[in-house]
Amino acid sequence: MADDLHMDPEHFRELGRKLIDFIADYREKIETFPVLSQVKPGEIAASLPLEPPVEGDSLDSILQDIDHIVMPGLTHWQSPGFFGYYPANSSLPSVLAELLCAGLGVQGMSWVTSPACTELETRVLDWLAGILGLPESFSSSSSGGGGVIHGTASEAVLAVMVAGRERIRFTGEADGKELRAYCSNQAHSSVLKAASICGIGSENLVQVGVRDDLSIDSAMLEAAIESDLAAGRVPFFICATVGTTSTCAMDSVAELGRIARKYELWLHVDAAYAGNACVCPEFRAMIEGVELADSFNCNPHKWLLTTFDCSTLWVRDRESFTQALSVTPEYLRTSQGDSGAVIDYRDWQIPLGRRFRSLKLWFVLRWYGVEGLRAFIREQVRLAELFEELVSGAQNFEVCAPRRLGLVCFRFRGSDDENRELLDAINAGGEIFLTHTVIPAEGAGRYVLRFATGTISTKEKHVLQAWEIIQSLAPPGTPPGTPPG
Amino acid sequence: MADDLHMDPEHFRELGRKLIDFIADYREKIETFPVLSQVKPGEIAASLPLEPPVEGDSLDSILQDIDHIVMPGLTHWQSPGFFGYYPANSSLPSVLAELLCAGLGVQGMSWVTSPACTELETRVLDWLAGILGLPESFSSSSSGGGGVIHGTASEAVLAVMVAGRERIRFTGEADGKELRAYCSNQAHSSVLKAASICGIGSENLVQVGVRDDLSIDSAMLEAAIESDLAAGRVPFFICATVGTTSTCAMDSVAELGRIARKYELWLHVDAAYAGNACVCPEFRAMIEGVELADSFNCNPHKWLLTTFDCSTLWVRDRESFTQALSVTPEYLRTSQGDSGAVIDYRDWQIPLGRRFRSLKLWFVLRWYGVEGLRAFIREQVRLAELFEELVSGAQNFEVCAPRRLGLVCFRFRGSDDENRELLDAINAGGEIFLTHTVIPAEGAGRYVLRFATGTISTKEKHVLQAWEIIQSLAPPGTPPGTPPG
Repeated sequence: MADDLHMDPEHFRELGRKLIDFIADYREKIETFPVLSQVKPGEIAASLPLEPPVEGDSLDSILQDIDHIVMPGLTHWQSPGFFGYYPANSSLPSVLAELLCAGLGVQGMSWVTSPACTELETRVLDWLAGILGLPESFSSSSSGGGGVIHGTASEAVLAVMVAGRERIRFTGEADGKELRAYCSNQAHSSVLKAASICGIGSENLVQVGVRDDLSIDSAMLEAAIESDLAAGRVPFFICATVGTTSTCAMDSVAELGRIARKYELWLHVDAAYAGNACVCPEFRAMIEGVELADSFNCNPHKWLLTTFDCSTLWVRDRESFTQALSVTPEYLRTSQGDSGAVIDYRDWQIPLGRRFRSLKLWFVLRWYGVEGLRAFIREQVRLAELFEELVSGAQNFEVCAPRRLGLVCFRFRGSDDENRELLDAINAGGEIFLTHTVIPAEGAGRYVLRFATGTISTKEKHVLQAWEIIQSLAPPGTPPGTPPG
Repeated sequence: MADDLHMDPEHFRELGRKLIDFIADYREKIETFPVLSQVKPGEIAASLPLEPPVEGDSLDSILQDIDHIVMPGLTHWQSPGFFGYYPANSSLPSVLAELLCAGLGVQGMSWVTSPACTELETRVLDWLAGILGLPESFSSSSSGGGGVIHGTASEAVLAVMVAGRERIRFTGEADGKELRAYCSNQAHSSVLKAASICGIGSENLVQVGVRDDLSIDSAMLEAAIESDLAAGRVPFFICATVGTTSTCAMDSVAELGRIARKYELWLHVDAAYAGNACVCPEFRAMIEGVELADSFNCNPHKWLLTTFDCSTLWVRDRESFTQALSVTPEYLRTSQGDSGAVIDYRDWQIPLGRRFRSLKLWFVLRWYGVEGLRAFIREQVRLAELFEELVSGAQNFEVCAPRRLGLVCFRFRGSDDENRELLDAINAGGEIFLTHTVIPAEGAGRYVLRFATGTISTKEKHVLQAWEIIQSLAPPGTPPGTPPG
């Protein structure tokens, strides 16, 4: 009976082809869907049966429901009209690798549970460190460093914050005192979440003020550290953000590195989006000073063509990193692990189990080659420059923050409400999708639209179309206070 | 130029078919590989180039390297001879769903980023709660409960421990005091890791002693709580384990529930492996009292045919759960989220980004149907019973802990060293793979072999073969002290 129960490989061949075609068709016709799902809350749920099926069903019947129930409820991140948030590219080579990962179905928690899963990851992370121009000290061939794939930047910052916390606890300096971590008030919400989860408390994450360009004010940071020291608190961690989520603002890693060294704090560089651009040498200035950092993180699942989840983290001192995360019960002990001859990646992350995620990064690096990655990044930056020019040339719009890489922050020269309504109208149209942010300004902050290029399928014509749509939906007439063109 | 850079859908059709065949071939010939990889540390790495390719490569060339470099470095978790750890089934319907998930490439961090991703997850988790016989209070249709898919049980226990910690902090009772959490000394290492990460400190996780059947001694637990209260510490959290990793021992949820209610502690039930068996009504006695728990977790990626990662977590009070994990910066605000009309699953987990993981659980539930899942579990339990009988009937072996579900703990009636050597010999042979544990005993504990059925492809003949192999490798003669047969 068990034979009839499971899908046999022959059946899998047939259904697999069907599904490959389904995905190819989807990617081919992706522009026909409204980018932002237009369903109302509860609409998808109402189409789904309240009870699970008692007897098994066919793939055809499931695919029909994908078409009729699921598709209308998708926001199409792979659409060329997707300019929201930051991109989350799922390139087709990486889709194939994800398929292979599931097909092999191995676990990489320990070296022995699939040595290739560990050793390929280590090598591919060394490759990527080199491609990004990271210092040798982050490579596994250095005396103490190495890289690991996490699910998300949120997990990475939590893991390194815990490592920093344990490093200072180990010294005994922190006994009975409040621990303090620092980032700019523009840092990603995951830093605050990490502070809360790891128990130092969100009140002990100091969100330091920023300069006009929205980068952290290093003098204010140093003053905050001094003031905490004077009050008997224990500074232990700084998160530098290279490319904030809001506006792609960039902290000076060199300045923060100097401060981190002076006060012996763990310096983490969160370059989740922008860091990927370091594959192009001309963009590496933004991480100058990274050799002073203890850890560096970027997300190939954002802008380096690797399907989610693939967040790459490097540390300079793997011993203090893994000490904080290592727990080895008897049933996980192996002679290879005990000997120290191998990496057991479970000690480099929060979860125990882990997928063979390096496959997708490997597929992407091999399929595109280093030059292919560079060509992709450069083209998407060029498209953002083009959009920036279009906005700058218009009398009724303005660019609100310096364009950085693929992100343009802009607004209609009118009220916040007008911009809010404009964004709703843009997204209701379905051809393109943008998101918003609020930029610090006198008073309460300014409501601003974000236009992020970077989705694989986006070409010049889509950017031009996007601008036409935005212009066509903008309130008519020239707003008051518009400078002469 | 960008057109040449990326894989177009037509090319994807061709390569996708190739890869589908590659996986089908792999599953067909999986028995020809040694289950445990036989490579030495560093061997895989030595076969990989030190530098990434500058120009792009073909899928054929990558697949060749998979065959020649990666395959020898795999431990084959999907092999019918895999009896190690607990199973990590990657059923072929769930492989297809994972492919679809990557192909669609959407994000589910907020409702609006793909409403179907959220609403399908909520519904499928309600389905599964029903199939497992969980109380209505965990369902999203109840007044306060609901389910979510995490990556692993480790993340789930960390998330609920943080929620429990924040719940007690909110009362102010814990100010300046040590927080205490409790589990048995047989609980999974992830509970200790969670205590360390969340900052209460591993020294504040009390690992309570166990009874002869390796379940937590409730009287000792209550005494530990009383003693902590007397010492001015603040108990806040109990983790009950239903099916320990070592021996599948089961704490009494009802007893722990009574204690949790009495002292107002968060009760989490970690049923990562065993919980899946609750799809069969005859196995539900093991979670009796679960209505007293605050949260319940099991891993369909272990024993419910869903490819890793898929760890399902239900909470009874979603408000106190999400309050601990919710951080909403401006760039993530949506009108639907603000209105409270929808679930934003980012507030139910540690990471921000999330894949469309409910697809694979949905595919599995639909493909197999409830009766299919039950048939699968029952068959694998029957195979474990068969193995238990074989061991019990042999004079030179003994069953060391009561068989529970698919796990048999046994040993050769000889020294720990003889058993260690036997395990090495078994795994070196390559036809089957087993792991070990140490069972508490007078003195230092006894070294024991674990035989876990549950891999999809395992049939009766594989269990019989496994027993033959084990017998053939056992030290010759009847060990001293063997009881008469």
